[in-house]
Amino acid sequence: MTVVQKYGGTSVGSIERLQAVAARIAHRAAQGRPMAVVVSAMGKTTDELVALAGAVSARPPRREMDMLLATGEIVSSALLAMAVRELGHGAVALTGAQAGVFTDDTFGRARIRGIDTERIQREFAAGNVVIIAGFQGASGEADFTTLGRGGSDTSAVALGAALHAQQVEIYTDVEGIYTTDPRIEPDARRLADIAAEEMLEAAAQGAGVMHPRAVELGLLYDIPIVVASSFAADGAAGTVIRKEVLMEPEDRVRTIALDRDVASLTLRQVPDRPGIAAQLFGPLADAGISVDTIVQNAGEDRLTDLTFTVSHADLEQAREVAAPLARELGAAELLHDHDLVKVSLIGTGMQSAPGYAALMFRTLSDADINIELITTSEIRITVLLRSEQGEQAVQLLHRAFALDQPVST
Amino acid sequence: MTVVQKYGGTSVGSIERLQAVAARIAHRAAQGRPMAVVVSAMGKTTDELVALAGAVSARPPRREMDMLLATGEIVSSALLAMAVRELGHGAVALTGAQAGVFTDDTFGRARIRGIDTERIQREFAAGNVVIIAGFQGASGEADFTTLGRGGSDTSAVALGAALHAQQVEIYTDVEGIYTTDPRIEPDARRLADIAAEEMLEAAAQGAGVMHPRAVELGLLYDIPIVVASSFAADGAAGTVIRKEVLMEPEDRVRTIALDRDVASLTLRQVPDRPGIAAQLFGPLADAGISVDTIVQNAGEDRLTDLTFTVSHADLEQAREVAAPLARELGAAELLHDHDLVKVSLIGTGMQSAPGYAALMFRTLSDADINIELITTSEIRITVLLRSEQGEQAVQLLHRAFALDQPVST
Repeated sequence: MTVVQKYGGTSVGSIERLQAVAARIAHRAAQGRPMAVVVSAMGKTTDELVALAGAVSARPPRREMDMLLATGEIVSSALLAMAVRELGHGAVALTGAQAGVFTDDTFGRARIRGIDTERIQREFAAGNVVIIAGFQGASGEADFTTLGRGGSDTSAVALGAALHAQQVEIYTDVEGIYTTDPRIEPDARRLADIAAEEMLEAAAQGAGVMHPRAVELGLLYDIPIVVASSFAADGAAGTVIRKEVLMEPEDRVRTIALDRDVASLTLRQVPDRPGIAAQLFGPLADAGISVDTIVQNAGEDRLTDLTFTVSHADLEQAREVAAPLARELGAAELLHDHDLVKVSLIGTGMQSAPGYAALMFRTLSDADINIELITTSEIRITVLLRSEQGEQAVQLLHRAFALDQPVST
Repeated sequence: MTVVQKYGGTSVGSIERLQAVAARIAHRAAQGRPMAVVVSAMGKTTDELVALAGAVSARPPRREMDMLLATGEIVSSALLAMAVRELGHGAVALTGAQAGVFTDDTFGRARIRGIDTERIQREFAAGNVVIIAGFQGASGEADFTTLGRGGSDTSAVALGAALHAQQVEIYTDVEGIYTTDPRIEPDARRLADIAAEEMLEAAAQGAGVMHPRAVELGLLYDIPIVVASSFAADGAAGTVIRKEVLMEPEDRVRTIALDRDVASLTLRQVPDRPGIAAQLFGPLADAGISVDTIVQNAGEDRLTDLTFTVSHADLEQAREVAAPLARELGAAELLHDHDLVKVSLIGTGMQSAPGYAALMFRTLSDADINIELITTSEIRITVLLRSEQGEQAVQLLHRAFALDQPVST
């Protein structure tokens, strides 16, 4: 079975760290299985390249931007291959294009169309570990493309699928997925495994370890993803993201996510009639604004309040787009609030156990924490709170749902 | 007629300089002729990448080294294309591979097999200036290759040939080819033109402006090369390197070159018989040591002294290779000397005018400068001198041959 690993930018953030990663790779490769390793750009390289482009152009052309950014991963893959060979094991570095990663031509956020593994297989046959520049592919024109956010994770999972790997190992600077962010709650525990659907919700709700896109791809191709630390001892456990988690009871809270990048807009007292949402959210989408939570509260006299959340970066533009629409729709006023956080309980089967929502609301109410807004999905309950109460809420909920306790099996 | 330009690393050594180059390009492109621009890596980028590789591996694999180094020119070409577009003119950046530069697979010093200009022509048709990463190409395996020393100049001249350009413009940090190095002789004058053969000799004898390889390619394809400063006003003259220089008298000294990177080895009193040279220089070539001047002086009693010069970097290894051979050949001793310089007078038709050699030797002798060794070619007289007398010799010869005087026509 082919081994597929991915190392993030922090894991190769210096020559010393890159050499430590090379040692892990050489050690694993010595076990004799074919091995493909996806690597991100070293440390802050990508940010530095973005800054260079920004110094030259206010709006850099996307094609050349991708060409520029792709060099970061080419450098780290070439150096990592050198470091592995220095340890006596055969290794070659491949760009995304050389590794057969073909994408569409939407520069900056290309989607993988397919992977031709011919070259990789040939290098395996020659006894080489294949080090692949992550985050990138080639368009039909043989131009560099980049995959956008979460790109290297996506490269790794896609390669895992194409190479029929048993699992994809994602090495990063944390030891796995936790019951909540350990920087907020010191009693947070690492989860041995988590369902992909849960991970998707957690990622969407602000848990930054894995990009949802890579998790989705793992789900689609049914490949388990192991998230572990590149700094921990070799073979340390990490967290397995699987299609289904069978070994543990499903009806419990798995993790609590805190998303600080939340701003809300509210159209107050809109006359309630069909098509309001389309009239509002069409133009927002056209402006490239990603709308997160949407809540519409039916009010008195067929007047309704419509609230939605966006990232802080999109707030100003969202207000510009929404203001004339609010007038057209007859809203009494357009309010906005950027001093908010989202706290989400995530766990499979929560909806079928209504006691969870009740315990969540009671815990917050007992601590005089006011809930601004509530949304739920099948495996998630999210509340919008004032920013300054976010961390306290996470800590209280972590205890209330006994996430600091080992799981009884 | 297509315009082909090349800008060196110093010319794009900072964002400000790169923007100044972009302004020159946009100004020229506005005249409406198709335009291809070859660019080197910014400033010290290549040295930094070499240092990174050196930190990872004592002997970095050549294939990955080329992959690593190629990123330097990809970065500068992407940024330069962005900067040109920022000025309102269409521009795309292409890697060597995308520009159709195909090479053999001798990594580190690949030779160009051919250039498929289809993509470049397509970008011309779309109204784009094409910015091409210099110094690089693609092997048959679609691996990055680099062209070795003088690589970007070679890229530019090869593209000039493939695109049927009228001339190739090489922009660098000097204003052209001079009668000698202006840092040594303040009265040195810029030459309006120089014959390619003269330029080849000058480059081989230490005049660092152009690599001989690019000059040879220009000669082979009969494309004039204009060397000019990227810092001078747009349209400043520079020096034209042509196949033949017809407009000036041919029988005069054109330029004086000083080469400081000279060490000599001498096999003293070798019994003179056929095959000595082969026995000595075969193993040196096999060891990758580039031998420059070779002089064999027939001595008394069928014993001969054999002297050759190498670069300082190669001296130690040359001694190691030569020592056992000297014993085999029966030499009395193996001497070496690294405290030498070469001073060369270069000019077409010098051999047919023996007065030049006489004037050279008299000038040096009048100043008590001892000549260690003399070699000549059809268009060159070279003397080996003690290091400390090199600059004085250049200054005296510059005056003796009236190179500080405007040419009378």
